[in-house]
Amino acid sequence: MKFLTTLGTFLTSIVFLNACGSNLTAQSAIESDVCLNESYDEKIERLGITNEKYLSTASKRALAWPDRNNNWYGQFRVRDLKGDFAYEKGVTRRDPSSVLYEDGLYHTWYSRSVGPSKGFTDNFDDKTWPWDYTDVWHATSKDGITWKEHKAAVERGKAGEFDDRSVFTPEVFKHEDTYYLVYQTVKSPYIQRVKNQVGISSSSSPWGPWKKHPEPILSPADNGQWLGDDPHNRFSVINKGDFDSHKVHDPYLTFFNGKFHLYYKGEQMGWEITFGGREIRHGVATSDSPFGPFTKSPFNPISNSGHEVAIWHYDGGIGSLITTDGPERNTVQWAKDGVNFEILANIKSAPHAMGLLRKNDNSKQPFKIFDWGLTHKYQNKDYQYIQRFDGSQPKRSKTSATYKLKCAD
Amino acid sequence: MKFLTTLGTFLTSIVFLNACGSNLTAQSAIESDVCLNESYDEKIERLGITNEKYLSTASKRALAWPDRNNNWYGQFRVRDLKGDFAYEKGVTRRDPSSVLYEDGLYHTWYSRSVGPSKGFTDNFDDKTWPWDYTDVWHATSKDGITWKEHKAAVERGKAGEFDDRSVFTPEVFKHEDTYYLVYQTVKSPYIQRVKNQVGISSSSSPWGPWKKHPEPILSPADNGQWLGDDPHNRFSVINKGDFDSHKVHDPYLTFFNGKFHLYYKGEQMGWEITFGGREIRHGVATSDSPFGPFTKSPFNPISNSGHEVAIWHYDGGIGSLITTDGPERNTVQWAKDGVNFEILANIKSAPHAMGLLRKNDNSKQPFKIFDWGLTHKYQNKDYQYIQRFDGSQPKRSKTSATYKLKCAD
Repeated sequence: MKFLTTLGTFLTSIVFLNACGSNLTAQSAIESDVCLNESYDEKIERLGITNEKYLSTASKRALAWPDRNNNWYGQFRVRDLKGDFAYEKGVTRRDPSSVLYEDGLYHTWYSRSVGPSKGFTDNFDDKTWPWDYTDVWHATSKDGITWKEHKAAVERGKAGEFDDRSVFTPEVFKHEDTYYLVYQTVKSPYIQRVKNQVGISSSSSPWGPWKKHPEPILSPADNGQWLGDDPHNRFSVINKGDFDSHKVHDPYLTFFNGKFHLYYKGEQMGWEITFGGREIRHGVATSDSPFGPFTKSPFNPISNSGHEVAIWHYDGGIGSLITTDGPERNTVQWAKDGVNFEILANIKSAPHAMGLLRKNDNSKQPFKIFDWGLTHKYQNKDYQYIQRFDGSQPKRSKTSATYKLKCAD
Repeated sequence: MKFLTTLGTFLTSIVFLNACGSNLTAQSAIESDVCLNESYDEKIERLGITNEKYLSTASKRALAWPDRNNNWYGQFRVRDLKGDFAYEKGVTRRDPSSVLYEDGLYHTWYSRSVGPSKGFTDNFDDKTWPWDYTDVWHATSKDGITWKEHKAAVERGKAGEFDDRSVFTPEVFKHEDTYYLVYQTVKSPYIQRVKNQVGISSSSSPWGPWKKHPEPILSPADNGQWLGDDPHNRFSVINKGDFDSHKVHDPYLTFFNGKFHLYYKGEQMGWEITFGGREIRHGVATSDSPFGPFTKSPFNPISNSGHEVAIWHYDGGIGSLITTDGPERNTVQWAKDGVNFEILANIKSAPHAMGLLRKNDNSKQPFKIFDWGLTHKYQNKDYQYIQRFDGSQPKRSKTSATYKLKCAD
């Protein structure tokens, strides 16, 4: 191991000795200038490799990791909320949207339904899952802890309309004084094989009234083929089609690089369980208007893992939190162009169905977007309720004098 | 997308239609012959890539994944136990060893201590953590649910001995009619900077009596240098030394390729928080005798991530579950030579401090080793208790006629 004995190091160590000899005060280990630009030798040393002539396979993988700093490494707690967001038996509130902060109030929109679920049965009128027979509701809070439910912002359509069965899993987007809600829609019957769509409504105020756009703005690809006619078998296929041949979920609308971007989760007909679990990928579609027509990116899918979409603006690009499914689950990713995502951090876990605090978009501070936001919890299979998550970055006592990670930027 | 229209496919689809048109019976998606040997085109299709002329960065990463089957993808539940393993206020039982099955009884060994912990303080006699002032105890069960605690198998040594402060985090190994317990040892004072060691005791019966070997069999590397003299600052270093310069934890003894192998977790002086969290790596040392001398492998470290050691024998090699810390957390790994580990699966999460069921070593069935075993749970920072985990593999309804993953072997 290297033994640094230069005078400079000696002097530095003296300074640190006096400054922090017995300093146990926790400081953030994630400093804004903590980054990595190690030489190969420095990497060997930091990785604790005992003999660089004998590299284990795992050490070789470690040596091949790209230079990444620790700016985006963090963790989450979750907690119950108060008021109308406390758990209420008989009612499901779930899949909260982003949180907007307007005139001293926090606003969110979410799926709300009542009554138990039966799964897919022979009676197509049965409530299938907690997000069936759902409307999009609106709630506000002064402090982000106690929430007051108001009313439905978007309700299911009339019989025969594309959104007549359920409207759910909303996201909100404010652009130039107009508010948009995008959400999943299902047209009866709600069978396993149903292909949902994405609808949009708009308003000049977060309080509504919300005007529905008459047509869906996104639909699944139509290049898969079912095998057989079992309405509840999603795995029997002649061919699978694209990553979004079955479902377009978790729509997220934003404006980026001069165009409206609609990020979403795709589900593929006949998806497999692989070495990394369930196959789930994200896609993006763009348009000059929030009402479409939206053109799916030829680069789709833009993730190879993930579940609910959690997107934010950072450093002129788009951040994305990949959770739950696939080999890249639990990674923080970022794409300068909003399409080609690189991994910034591998975290332990993350809350599901996160609604991020939109006022933390474009923060210069990494991880600020995760300061707090909303998520949901399963009380049981029938009823879920909205919780709050709080993100943080680990603390550690003062680093050594000589092993301060050097800045790459 | 490819459109398979051959007669063979048509006939196959007819057979499957009749056989499973409305078959919702869940079957194991993880079949023993499910494996992967896809062509590039088949991979493009399965990954749902919409235009292979426009590959997103995430799709390129997916296309570069090695061919892996889903044999080792699985999940875990945990549950409370009964009898003496129910939570007991004032007592900590944690870090259970592997479970041996002998004469109709399950046996395990574990850390047991009493009273609350204070962390590292100025009074070096204070109990620091739940594994301080600990002895190794023994319990048995007929059914793996209700456990009966017996007595201490290994107790702390006399004042001045290398194990006088605490003996904890045991593992058990039976070899040719002799039973071995390996465990962490600490010699007073238990300061943050203390370098623990590994001790070993042996017996001709799981019931004891256990004979202590007078010397430790493993120690941390001595090539790190502390900076300053704060006994509780583990991060202030002049140089870090090897991956195991501070601690050698979670010892696991087994016999493989004609030698005794001691797997362990290393902790490095001055470890960093990186893009993947805390730096933790595993090592292995070998010997012709269980009592040593053990020679650390020149290939150490043999993992680049992980925490507690969970090792088993499979298919002539060694399996290892990497959890908790580092970019490769939550991966199932395997090494034909016990040193060079490849990733077999990326799972969602795993229980901590797992004690595996040793009778499931050398099973031909993947994931069998995780059928059930022991783990622990934090009731609070002072008291932990032993739980049971149950591993399983996800179920899915019958796969399609044509998209059955093809066998690589």
